[in-house]
Amino acid sequence: MNQYINYRNLRFLTFEMLEAHKLNRYAYFSEYDRDAFDMAIDAAKQIADNHLFPYYVEMDRKKAYFDNGSVKVHPQLKVIIKNMAEGGWISANAPVEYGGMQMPYSLLHTGLISFYAANVNACYPFLTQGAANLILTFGSEELKNAFLPNMYSGDWQGTMALTEPQAGSSLADIVTTAEPVGNVEGMSTYGEGLYKIRGQKIYISGGEHDGVDNIVHLLLARIKGAPAGTKGISLFVVPKFRPENGELVPNDVQCAGLYGKMGQKGYVAAHLMYGEKDSCYGYLVGEPHKGLNYMFQMMNEARIGTGLVAAGAASAAYYASLKYANERPQGRHPSNKDPMSEPVLIIEHADVKRLLLFQKVITEGSIALLSQCSYYADIALAAEGEEKENAHLLLELLTPIAKSYPSEMGTHSVSAAMQTLGGAGYCDDFPIEQIYRDIRVNAIYEGTTAIHGMDLLGRKVMMHNGKASQLLGNEIIETVTEGIKYQYLALYAQKLGEAAQRLQTLTSDLMNIGKEKGVETILADATLYLDYFSQVVMGWIWLKQGIIAEKALKNGAEGDDRTFYESKKIALRFFFDYELPKTKALYQQLINADKVTTTITKELIV
Amino acid sequence: MNQYINYRNLRFLTFEMLEAHKLNRYAYFSEYDRDAFDMAIDAAKQIADNHLFPYYVEMDRKKAYFDNGSVKVHPQLKVIIKNMAEGGWISANAPVEYGGMQMPYSLLHTGLISFYAANVNACYPFLTQGAANLILTFGSEELKNAFLPNMYSGDWQGTMALTEPQAGSSLADIVTTAEPVGNVEGMSTYGEGLYKIRGQKIYISGGEHDGVDNIVHLLLARIKGAPAGTKGISLFVVPKFRPENGELVPNDVQCAGLYGKMGQKGYVAAHLMYGEKDSCYGYLVGEPHKGLNYMFQMMNEARIGTGLVAAGAASAAYYASLKYANERPQGRHPSNKDPMSEPVLIIEHADVKRLLLFQKVITEGSIALLSQCSYYADIALAAEGEEKENAHLLLELLTPIAKSYPSEMGTHSVSAAMQTLGGAGYCDDFPIEQIYRDIRVNAIYEGTTAIHGMDLLGRKVMMHNGKASQLLGNEIIETVTEGIKYQYLALYAQKLGEAAQRLQTLTSDLMNIGKEKGVETILADATLYLDYFSQVVMGWIWLKQGIIAEKALKNGAEGDDRTFYESKKIALRFFFDYELPKTKALYQQLINADKVTTTITKELIV
Repeated sequence: MNQYINYRNLRFLTFEMLEAHKLNRYAYFSEYDRDAFDMAIDAAKQIADNHLFPYYVEMDRKKAYFDNGSVKVHPQLKVIIKNMAEGGWISANAPVEYGGMQMPYSLLHTGLISFYAANVNACYPFLTQGAANLILTFGSEELKNAFLPNMYSGDWQGTMALTEPQAGSSLADIVTTAEPVGNVEGMSTYGEGLYKIRGQKIYISGGEHDGVDNIVHLLLARIKGAPAGTKGISLFVVPKFRPENGELVPNDVQCAGLYGKMGQKGYVAAHLMYGEKDSCYGYLVGEPHKGLNYMFQMMNEARIGTGLVAAGAASAAYYASLKYANERPQGRHPSNKDPMSEPVLIIEHADVKRLLLFQKVITEGSIALLSQCSYYADIALAAEGEEKENAHLLLELLTPIAKSYPSEMGTHSVSAAMQTLGGAGYCDDFPIEQIYRDIRVNAIYEGTTAIHGMDLLGRKVMMHNGKASQLLGNEIIETVTEGIKYQYLALYAQKLGEAAQRLQTLTSDLMNIGKEKGVETILADATLYLDYFSQVVMGWIWLKQGIIAEKALKNGAEGDDRTFYESKKIALRFFFDYELPKTKALYQQLINADKVTTTITKELIV
Repeated sequence: MNQYINYRNLRFLTFEMLEAHKLNRYAYFSEYDRDAFDMAIDAAKQIADNHLFPYYVEMDRKKAYFDNGSVKVHPQLKVIIKNMAEGGWISANAPVEYGGMQMPYSLLHTGLISFYAANVNACYPFLTQGAANLILTFGSEELKNAFLPNMYSGDWQGTMALTEPQAGSSLADIVTTAEPVGNVEGMSTYGEGLYKIRGQKIYISGGEHDGVDNIVHLLLARIKGAPAGTKGISLFVVPKFRPENGELVPNDVQCAGLYGKMGQKGYVAAHLMYGEKDSCYGYLVGEPHKGLNYMFQMMNEARIGTGLVAAGAASAAYYASLKYANERPQGRHPSNKDPMSEPVLIIEHADVKRLLLFQKVITEGSIALLSQCSYYADIALAAEGEEKENAHLLLELLTPIAKSYPSEMGTHSVSAAMQTLGGAGYCDDFPIEQIYRDIRVNAIYEGTTAIHGMDLLGRKVMMHNGKASQLLGNEIIETVTEGIKYQYLALYAQKLGEAAQRLQTLTSDLMNIGKEKGVETILADATLYLDYFSQVVMGWIWLKQGIIAEKALKNGAEGDDRTFYESKKIALRFFFDYELPKTKALYQQLINADKVTTTITKELIV
C-alpha cells in the first residue's frame, strides 16, 4: 500500500500522459531517455523513503528554534540537504557547464513531489535551487562562479528576501535601501556594483539556520534615488558571510527571531535585519531597477513549487487516511439492522468513500496539473519558435491555477482525510493533524489566492489579446474530441466541452461588465473566477488521464495495472459528478454585476 | 470595537428577533423579565472579559498534560469553574427546587456563546451541566441529592463516557460491562442498583483533571446478559471517588493518558480505564437497557453545545480579523497606478470585504440559528400541548443543522479570517492560528457531520409523517410572506421561497429514489443534503433578521444602531448573493441517482 505518494501514478503521468521521456528529442535534454527517468525516480524514492518520510513527525515535534541570534534546526536537515546535493537535485535544472544536470522539469518535479509528500521540510534545498537559478539567469559570470558551486553543493542556503513589515504583498512599497559604495578594499564587486544594504525583511523561509555554512539572500531593495513603485526595485545578492580578503566574514545580517508558524515547524521563517551596524554589503544582479522583473522568475518557480508542496501534503494525507479506512472496522450499512453482524471496514461506508474519492481527485488532479505545467516549462526552455512561445504562454496562464488549486483544494482534501479518521484524525497519534497544520500556509505563500485570482482575470486571460486562453481552449477541444470517442468518457467529454464554452462566455461577459462598470467590479470576485477556471482546467486534466486509462484498458492491462486504470476512471467520474457541478454556483456568483463588496463602505462591516 | 463577540448582536437576537424576555408568560420562566435578561448578559460579559478572554492563548501555550496518572490543567480553570458556579451558570437551567436558576435556554445560550467565543476552555462546567441534567431527568431522588449539589457548586466535574476503542461512533458495539452486585456494606445504591463496571472509554472530554475534587462519569455500559446492539445499553453514574462509609474513596477509574489534540489544548480528552482492579462501582440511572435513549438528552444538548462552541470560535476569529483589516494599510485599488499614493487599509480591498462578509454571515447566522433553537427548547420545556410538541419537533429537526453548520462553515470562516491576515494569520502573534486549530474538532465531536446528515435525511425530515418538515416549511412561508412586503427584502424573500420549494421537491424525489434503489443510495450523499437543507434554513434565519432590521430602520434607528441594522442588511444580501447559490451545485450532486460511492468496491479506491 502506498505511504505518502503513489509512484505508479507518477510514472503514469510522466511516461503515459506526457511521454516526458521523449523530451530527449530536444538537444538540451538529450541525455534523458526512459532509463534516465526511471533511475532518477528510483533515486528520489530512496531519498524520500530513507531520509525524509521517517523524520516528518519528528521535525515537527523537535521544531526549529531561535536561540540567542542563531537558529537551530533538526540535525536531519543536514542529511537531507547533503543527499539532495549529492543526488544532483539542487543543481538539477542548471546547465552542465555550471555543474548542473540539465534535467527536465517534468522529471525534477516528480522528484520534488515525492520529497514534499514524504516531508515538507525538504523545501530548503529547493529555495537554494530557485535562488541559484536567478543568479544563473541574470548574474555576472563572476557572481555565478563565486556562488553557484557552494549552493549546488548544499553548503550554502539560498533565500528569496522580498517581504517587508510595512509592505506585505505590496512590493511597490518596499523601502530597504541600497547605496552604491564603488570599490572597497578586499572585496570583489563580481563584475556588478557593490552596495550597502539597510532594511528589514520578514517571513524569510530558510532565512537563518545552522544546517548550512552560509546563506545567500536574493534580496529586493531600492537604490537611493530610484523611482517610486515597482519600477525602482533592484535585485541584490546579500550573503550572511561575505568573501573579504579571501575569507568569509560576517555581513551584518541579523536574525531578529523566527515566526511561530502553525505548521511546517521544521521549515523556518525568519525576521531579518540587514545593515543594523552599517556594514551589510550586497552585489547588484543585472541592471538597476529591473529587480522585480528578474524576481518574477524565482516567484513563478516558487509558485509552482508551492503547488507541489500542497499537492504533496494532500497526497500524504490521502494515503494515510486510505490506509486507516482499509484497516478500521466500525458500524454497519444503513439497511443492516442486525447488531450481531460483524462491523464493516469504514471504507465500506458511502460517505467515507466520498471523502476518499474527493481526496484522490484533488491529489491526483493536482499532481497531474503540475506535471502538465512542468512539461510546458520544458518545452518553453528547450524548443524554438512558436512551439516555445506557446508553451510559455500556457505555463504563464496555468501558473495561478497550479499554485492555488492544490493549495486551496488540498487544504479541503486534508480536512477530508481528518474527517475520515474522526477523532483519531484530530490527535497526534496519526500524521493527519500535522499535515492539516502544514498545508494551510500554501494558500498564503507566494501571493495569496486573491492575488492569483487577480493575476488570472486581470492580466493573463487577456494577455496577447487572449492568445494563452485560446491556446488552452484548443488543447481542451482536442481532448474533448478524443474523449468523445470512448463510451465511458463521452458524457464527461461533453460536460467538459459545455463548461469550457460557458467559461468563454462568462469571461467575455465579465470583460464587458468591466468596461461598463470598471475593473474593480469584476476583480472583486477574481478569486471565484479562479475557482471556476480551475474546475474547467481540472476537467481537462481528468479527461486527459481518462483517455490514457481507457487506452491502456483496451490494450489489455491486467492485475494491479488494471485496478490502477479502473481507479483512474472512477476518480474521473467522481470529478464530473461532484466537482464540476460547483461551477453552477460560481457562475451565478460571478455573473452578478452588482457587487456588494464594491458598493459598501468599510464602516458597514461591523 | 468588538473583541470576541458582538453583544449588541446578542441583544438584537434575544430581545428583537426572539423577544425571549417575553418567555416569562410561562410560569416556569416567570422570573425572567427584560431586566433579568440584561443583568445576566452583563454578568456573562464580566466573566468572559475578566476570566476567560485574557487566558485564551495562555491555556493553549501552557496546555493540560498527563503526569504519572493524573492530569494537570492551567490553574485558571479553577477560577473559571468557580465563577461559573457562583454566577449560577452551571445550575442555570435546573429547577429552583434542586438549586437551579430555571433560566431560559435563550438566555443561558447567550451566556455560553460569550464564554466560548472568549475562551473555548470554558467548556468544562457545561459538560457538568449536561451530566447533571441527565441525573436530574432520569435519576432517583437519592442520586440527585447526592450528586447535584456538588456538581452545581463546580466542585465535581461531569462527563459523558460513551466512546470505546473498538466501537467509535457505533454505540451499538460498546462492550463495557456492568455486573449487579446487590448491596455492599458501607455503600449506598441511591435507590438504584449498584453495579461493578469494567471497560475502557476514549476521548472523554474533562475525563480527568486537577481543577475539581471529583469527576462524575455518565457512562454507557452493558449489563451482563443484556441484548446486543443499542437496546442493551444502560446508563450509569460512575464517580472517580465514590462515597463509602461517609468518605470519598478511589473508585478504580484510571486515566491511561490524554489525547494529543491539534487544538483545544486546555480542554482535555482522556483515555479512561474502569475496573482494572475489579473495584469500580457505578449506580444505574433509570431503567436497565434504556441508557442510550436517556443519553440522547445529553447528546442533543451537547450537539447544540458543539454548535455554540463552533460559532463562538468563528466569532472570535471574525472580530480579530475585522480589527486587523481596519488597522493594516497595504496595497492600492487596482485602478490606482500611482505608487506615491498612500496605501489603503486592507478592508478597502474587495476581496478582503468578501472574506469579512463571509465570516459575518457564517458567524451571525450560526448564532442566530442557535438562538432560534434555544427558543424552541424553551417553548418545548415550558409550554403545553400542541405548542410544546411543535417546538420540540422543530428543535429535533434543526439540531443536526445547529450542530453541523457552525462546525463546518465555522471552520471555513476561521480559514477566511486567517486569509484576511495573510502570513500573520498563520503565525502565533495573532490568535487566529489557535482558533483555526481549535474549531476543527467540532465537525467530529458528538457525531461527525456525516452522522448528522444521515440523522436528518434518514430520520428527521420524515419523522411523524414529515410533520417537523411541514412545521419548518410553515415558518419559512410566514417569514417569506412578511419579507416580501419590504422593498429591499422582496427579491431575497422570493429567492428563499424558491429554494425552499426546490428543497421540498428534492426531498420527495430523493424519497422516491430511496424506494426504488434502496436507502443506501440516497444516504450516500446525506452530508450534501444536510448542506442543502442548511442553506435554506440559513436563508430563513437571515430573512428573519433582515425583517427586524428593516423595521428598526423604518422606526428611525440612528447612530451606531443604524449602522448595526444596515450592516445586518448587507450581510443578508451577501448571504443571498454568495451563499444560497451553492444550492445550485448541491442540487445537481444530490439528484444524480447513480452514485459512484455505492456502486464501486473498495478495491477500486487506490
